[in-house]
Amino acid sequence: MHNRDSMEVEMAHQQYSACVEACNRCAAACDHCATACLAERDPKPMAHCIALDMDCADICRLAVGYMSRGSVHANSVCQLCAEICDACADECSKHPMDHCRECADACRRCADECRRMPQQGSATAQASTSQRTH
Amino acid sequence: MHNRDSMEVEMAHQQYSACVEACNRCAAACDHCATACLAERDPKPMAHCIALDMDCADICRLAVGYMSRGSVHANSVCQLCAEICDACADECSKHPMDHCRECADACRRCADECRRMPQQGSATAQASTSQRTH
Amino acid sequence: MHNRDSMEVEMAHQQYSACVEACNRCAAACDHCATACLAERDPKPMAHCIALDMDCADICRLAVGYMSRGSVHANSVCQLCAEICDACADECSKHPMDHCRECADACRRCADECRRMPQQGSATAQASTSQRTH
Amino acid sequence: MHNRDSMEVEMAHQQYSACVEACNRCAAACDHCATACLAERDPKPMAHCIALDMDCADICRLAVGYMSRGSVHANSVCQLCAEICDACADECSKHPMDHCRECADACRRCADECRRMPQQGSATAQASTSQRTH
Repeated sequence: MHNRDSMEVEMAHQQYSACVEACNRCAAACDHCATACLAERDPKPMAHCIALDMDCADICRLAVGYMSRGSVHANSVCQLCAEICDACADECSKHPMDHCRECADACRRCADECRRMPQQGSATAQASTSQRTH
Repeated sequence: MHNRDSMEVEMAHQQYSACVEACNRCAAACDHCATACLAERDPKPMAHCIALDMDCADICRLAVGYMSRGSVHANSVCQLCAEICDACADECSKHPMDHCRECADACRRCADECRRMPQQGSATAQASTSQRTH
Repeated sequence: MHNRDSMEVEMAHQQYSACVEACNRCAAACDHCATACLAERDPKPMAHCIALDMDCADICRLAVGYMSRGSVHANSVCQLCAEICDACADECSKHPMDHCRECADACRRCADECRRMPQQGSATAQASTSQRTH
Repeated sequence: MHNRDSMEVEMAHQQYSACVEACNRCAAACDHCATACLAERDPKPMAHCIALDMDCADICRLAVGYMSRGSVHANSVCQLCAEICDACADECSKHPMDHCRECADACRRCADECRRMPQQGSATAQASTSQRTH
């Protein structure tokens, strides 16, 4: 019982590593984009971009926490994270600046990784189920 | 004026990359350690470790946000982050489990990177000062 | 244009106040419950409760941020927050301790407030639409 | 042993309630101020205010988490929170808009509450000490 629990925790940790990485990169790109937008000569046209950058950075970091803890709700958070990443990527794509283009790329990669997450239940729950059936 | 601002933002972004990486790894190690501690047969002796893991993961992610935004308060947050990483590393070092040893290592590396941050003012403020003097 | 934007921001701010309050109370109840569970003589049966407390506290605080910023994604985050509050309330309801019963109550109230949020679009978007049609 | 632990957890929870309330209000005021600044006709002069609003909202919510969990590091986080609240209040005080004045007020009240926190050790540690001496 004790060993199986530990193994499940370890499996969840491994399974999420690509998505954790993509979320961390996306959060940093969004934070950087928000600051760079505010440093533009005229930040007014960037107001919606800045707001989405904040939203996206925050949910990316939330998703990383859920994944790193092997939460049963990690997948649901990742699906919502993907939606918000898409919205941020769409907005950033409208602007020609490097920080916006890099942010759009990071958002799209993050959305892809988030959507690739197992569709229902956590890695832990699934590992547990597959072991029980053998 | 506009270009210098943008360059400063870019410089801050680069300068922090090693510390951002160390904080992200530390946060994930802490989250993983907390979950693995809870999955132990008897989590009671791990209660303080779990509490410190939560504290440490949270401030590491806060520090990453401050650094990624090039905040003038990034250094102050990093100094406090280093203290909390040390406390978490000390606690984790008392336990023989792999998740605790890996967490202790990640905490110590993160504390080192956080202490290496410029002692006063933000990277942006410093870049600005050094440019003005040339 | 300037005045309307400001009014919309103010309207979103007011509209969310009951839900913001419920989320803040829920997050505090969850954090308190996690700590109190860890202080129990045998925290093992509380492991799932502690994990859900962490999940719930984190998404409640995320939701508050989205609402306070009047984000276009505030409603989506609140819907997911309601689901996670329900899961935490269900788990807490299984345990007789005061901290669990108080946490279950706070989670159910928070889920109710989150579900009462406008079903599509942000308060800002809706205020803008309703003004345009008059 | 079990009862004393639970009582300590409860005492920490009560002791922090005024500061938790002030931090929650401050975070909401900062988030609202950032959004309202971005909705101004010319957000350029508000760029530093927006950046400080983000910093301040984030550390206020971190502090609430530490206090609600009765963390041994709650006081250290509150002291740093007070500094950042002061910086945000100073910047907001330079601007005549209602959202800035309300934010400055919330920041100053929050800084006051954060500084009123017990100077060393956590509420839990102190409760434990005072009980041992009687």
